[in-house]
Amino acid sequence: MDITFLGTGAGVPSKKRNVSSLALQMLQERGSTWLFDCGEATQHQILHTNIRPRKVEKIFITHLHGDHIFGLPGFISSRSFQGGDSPLTIYGPKGIQAFLETALAVSGTHLAYQVEVMEVEEGLLYEDDHCTVHCHKLDHGITSYGYAIQEHDKPGELLVDKLKEEGIEPGPIYQQIKENPVVEYNGKKLYREQFIGENKAGRKICILGDTRSQESTKDFIQDADLLVHEATFAKGETELAYSYYHSTTEQAALLAKKANVGMLILTHISSRYQDDDIDALLQEAQSVFPNTKIANDLSTFQITNMR
Amino acid sequence: MDITFLGTGAGVPSKKRNVSSLALQMLQERGSTWLFDCGEATQHQILHTNIRPRKVEKIFITHLHGDHIFGLPGFISSRSFQGGDSPLTIYGPKGIQAFLETALAVSGTHLAYQVEVMEVEEGLLYEDDHCTVHCHKLDHGITSYGYAIQEHDKPGELLVDKLKEEGIEPGPIYQQIKENPVVEYNGKKLYREQFIGENKAGRKICILGDTRSQESTKDFIQDADLLVHEATFAKGETELAYSYYHSTTEQAALLAKKANVGMLILTHISSRYQDDDIDALLQEAQSVFPNTKIANDLSTFQITNMR
Repeated sequence: MDITFLGTGAGVPSKKRNVSSLALQMLQERGSTWLFDCGEATQHQILHTNIRPRKVEKIFITHLHGDHIFGLPGFISSRSFQGGDSPLTIYGPKGIQAFLETALAVSGTHLAYQVEVMEVEEGLLYEDDHCTVHCHKLDHGITSYGYAIQEHDKPGELLVDKLKEEGIEPGPIYQQIKENPVVEYNGKKLYREQFIGENKAGRKICILGDTRSQESTKDFIQDADLLVHEATFAKGETELAYSYYHSTTEQAALLAKKANVGMLILTHISSRYQDDDIDALLQEAQSVFPNTKIANDLSTFQITNMR
Repeated sequence: MDITFLGTGAGVPSKKRNVSSLALQMLQERGSTWLFDCGEATQHQILHTNIRPRKVEKIFITHLHGDHIFGLPGFISSRSFQGGDSPLTIYGPKGIQAFLETALAVSGTHLAYQVEVMEVEEGLLYEDDHCTVHCHKLDHGITSYGYAIQEHDKPGELLVDKLKEEGIEPGPIYQQIKENPVVEYNGKKLYREQFIGENKAGRKICILGDTRSQESTKDFIQDADLLVHEATFAKGETELAYSYYHSTTEQAALLAKKANVGMLILTHISSRYQDDDIDALLQEAQSVFPNTKIANDLSTFQITNMR
């Protein structure tokens, strides 16, 4: 599972940072990619990655500000034009459906695949064999959400060495032990729990939209392996951050620490900060929460289980 | 007066050609720039030019296909964010207003300047001291327009040498001669027509949206100094061009020749053509109409009076 940042700037695109979007690539886990936000020119950024639009299965929109949604009509049109034919589900705050319907109707766009738009509220949003997705309200002037992807735990591996010690050689019996709490073999009862290693804990990934730092987010992101949090402003700009409904580097790091997350990635960096300033921003956060990174456009990070 | 191409591809963006937009820069003539079409990431392309969004006075949309309009909400939002405060007028087919209103309302965008949206029909669209703009219906499945910008002729220069020969030395009398058909000076009648050079003809620039080649466009573009015409397909693909409501290189060149235009620039090149193919496309057109160019992204051409 990898996360690739397609746009890491705030408000308007610059030469260095496009407006917001990121891709959660889960090709091994589910053969698909999910996008979070889709600012203008997200499809252009994708041209410089290995992401295939046809493999994008779901798009989660954190909030409806233009720098997070204006690339959506173009992305979904091009996905069709380029032969994408599998269904796509789009989750976002109320209003996302009207935006998309108008853009597609006015432009006479006919998609070669089915789009389902789900206008979301707090709580459990989605569940399947691989994971759940929950949604949590943030503090941003207009409705803004954070999403938590929680993988299910996976059963441990079969302890082959131990089975062999007991004289049980590989064969269909291995599969039977895996699938049943108890099986009989050569007149002997074999208990699964004795021959299966520990459960592999599923990962928890939290991706938040624009927000002021707020205490109530702590429980939602508790123990996440990865937290993606905005850091529009430097540590010293708490008043500016508050008045524009954004966070500082230090506020994001404090939240990560309190919630005991594994890794923090900062994004949504104001264009007031140049290349030279990035190290200072990073250090402000790392002095509070050491395992912090700052995302650049097209940065990719592997998401490992931190537990 | 310069024309800068911001996107010269067809349908979807590629690494080489963005979707449609071009800028007519008239800084000397009127201190402003006009955009024609505004495909996604037009504002991103502008970052690589000397165009200032705040100087963009008018945007003309040829038709509502996504690759010509999906950059509009982002452009007008960023123009405001970056301090643009002068009014902006947007012209386009019916539907453009609903698209913009929905995009701005849903995203909670408040502009720091006034936007007027004019849904256009064929005929005279606009007139001021500098020029007129007319609009002509093309043949593209959905309503698509061409725009003709006709500068007014400018009165010729005062023939100072001739005035001096007649013993009339520089002074307020020069201005009087310029402004009146006839003036008296030292008891002598001076006729303006004798002391003014020939009128300087205004330029005519025609910028067409996507279209099949059609005979009825000839009169509209007659004697234009510059014609910008789409050439989605190569000469041999007339059937494909017809069925997708587009033109070939040769069809565009034939129209330019019949209408006696000064220069032809081809744009809206299908992504099926690579760098290596461009010379062949150009030669197909030049063999019919020699003064043809093919636009690339960020190409700039000076528009001179060809008469």
